Amino acid sequence: MLIFHNPAHARHDGRQEMFRGRLVPCHETPARLAHVMAELQRRPVGELRTPGDADLALIRRVHQPRYVDFLATAWDEWVALDPENAAVDVLPSVWPVRGFRDDVLPLNFAARVGLFSFDAGSPLTAGTWDAARTGAACAIDAARALLAANAPRATMALTRPPGHHAGADFYGGYCFLNNAALAAQALRDGGARRVAVLDVDYHHGNGTQSLFYERADVMTLSIHGDPSTEYPFFLGHADERGAGAGAGCNLNLPLPAGTDFSGWSAALEQALAEIRRFGADALVIALGVDTFEGDPISRFRVSSADYLRIGAAIATLGLPTVFTMEGGYAVAEVGINVVNVLEGFVA
Amino acid sequence: MLIFHNPAHARHDGRQEMFRGRLVPCHETPARLAHVMAELQRRPVGELRTPGDADLALIRRVHQPRYVDFLATAWDEWVALDPENAAVDVLPSVWPVRGFRDDVLPLNFAARVGLFSFDAGSPLTAGTWDAARTGAACAIDAARALLAANAPRATMALTRPPGHHAGADFYGGYCFLNNAALAAQALRDGGARRVAVLDVDYHHGNGTQSLFYERADVMTLSIHGDPSTEYPFFLGHADERGAGAGAGCNLNLPLPAGTDFSGWSAALEQALAEIRRFGADALVIALGVDTFEGDPISRFRVSSADYLRIGAAIATLGLPTVFTMEGGYAVAEVGINVVNVLEGFVA
Repeated sequence: MLIFHNPAHARHDGRQEMFRGRLVPCHETPARLAHVMAELQRRPVGELRTPGDADLALIRRVHQPRYVDFLATAWDEWVALDPENAAVDVLPSVWPVRGFRDDVLPLNFAARVGLFSFDAGSPLTAGTWDAARTGAACAIDAARALLAANAPRATMALTRPPGHHAGADFYGGYCFLNNAALAAQALRDGGARRVAVLDVDYHHGNGTQSLFYERADVMTLSIHGDPSTEYPFFLGHADERGAGAGAGCNLNLPLPAGTDFSGWSAALEQALAEIRRFGADALVIALGVDTFEGDPISRFRVSSADYLRIGAAIATLGLPTVFTMEGGYAVAEVGINVVNVLEGFVA
Repeated sequence: MLIFHNPAHARHDGRQEMFRGRLVPCHETPARLAHVMAELQRRPVGELRTPGDADLALIRRVHQPRYVDFLATAWDEWVALDPENAAVDVLPSVWPVRGFRDDVLPLNFAARVGLFSFDAGSPLTAGTWDAARTGAACAIDAARALLAANAPRATMALTRPPGHHAGADFYGGYCFLNNAALAAQALRDGGARRVAVLDVDYHHGNGTQSLFYERADVMTLSIHGDPSTEYPFFLGHADERGAGAGAGCNLNLPLPAGTDFSGWSAALEQALAEIRRFGADALVIALGVDTFEGDPISRFRVSSADYLRIGAAIATLGLPTVFTMEGGYAVAEVGINVVNVLEGFVA
């Protein structure tokens, strides 16, 4: 196991997010990754490495160039509007929902913040672009390392902010660049014929699904809390099976809040069977551990020991595998649970 | 002039709105209408009346029934989730932007708040539904009074919250029910063949435009700050001319920030000429006075004396006219400027 960790992650350190009508401290914090790094010191399941420069050309193929340009310059633009803005993170306040246009790029900064986002819970900070870009480099390097001569069986992009909610041209759900999608595209570009992306985060991987929804070469699968009641609410239903050339290449397995490991692992077996049927020759796991019974903002009942079993089950596919780090907010246990998955996988 | 005022308006009294990444006190306050009422005491340009019960069937024809149902029950649902929520207004935090679905009604309350809104600046409060519904009654009664025997030449719905940003199934821009659209539909239902809705608020009347965009019987026109830089940003460009049967029946006249009365009145003359060409037999004026040079959140340079001229120019159409009260946030002058329009009209 080769683990690319993000030395810039702590530069993304949001102060407040909108949550139930209030501004509250962010759930997605640098401490999350610090706990994983600390656990990897205790239980070294792989070699740790930092990534090279991000492949911006690849990022601009997976995401829209105008969106990438916005992310790269947003903070400077925000502070240039008013030096006092440096004390406040960027949070959007107006969105082009149905009936509005998204084909005209507004000059107004607040309008572009809304154009390129879908929630008010994902603060964009002074260090967001550095952290997200370096995280993307982790994901791309992790994918490429898997295709090299004498490649390890698995690699990981150990990074934050997470990525699976980010779409072609929008951020939200704490995600800015879609690391899992970047890894999948890098695998395809490097020679993998059919890539499966399996998202095991508590929340539906809406960004990843939407990026590959009409493609037959990348299958997307997600096991998650039922969007009728769980974030991101507006995507992730079972009847979303892909479209056009990608018809049949998306599988959503929504589960009710309260699902325990028995119910969850049945869905995992179904997803693994689908990946075998698809004939994937490479795999990306969007690894959130907010399925944990102690997670403060999620409602499944997976235990720490269960994560060893999850890793082992995924390993039965026998595929070259990239893990990308997604959600998980029970800070102390995030490290244990992530490393349990990896340990279960390599065992 | 017969003026239907909203005795329930002060029940809508939001505490905070999201504005440039911060929660700030609301701009849209009960004091706005109190100033108009006080000015009408000083300069009685018409008879004041309160409305009858709101015609919910009409409201549910102009707006989507599932949206109206949501507005009617949202506050009770919010407080039922947690009694402490009574201390906090409802503000949305996640929206179904492009690529998300809006065909599935989520069970989750926060998700439905986002589904039915487009900004984070429009708090829904304990009294929002009462205020909005009674305001809609003002607009409907104002339209019907215009069609009665011995009708006055003009009527007004003197109400808040305003309405022109509200669409078929979304609120935002401080607006919940589209009073101008309800008045226009009531005029059509009452026998007017062709109705023109002219929006003179500083901000584009996106809700009204979208409600009638494919209809040939209601022409919508709006003079407003260029959406490239001004709210609501994502609609209001000059190339939006209507669609389907409504092609040619929408006219947007965006003007740059800083426009003075000379530039503004040239746009007004163009709009009036278009209304004559359309052959309207009834008129709705969505009357915002945030075009005022002292408005705190807008950037035109119309003076208080100019509003007398605006009223007089509109009167030259010689049409039965309903005024609906929209924006205007320079609180003390809102009364003077609104009554100046009415006085200029009736003079």
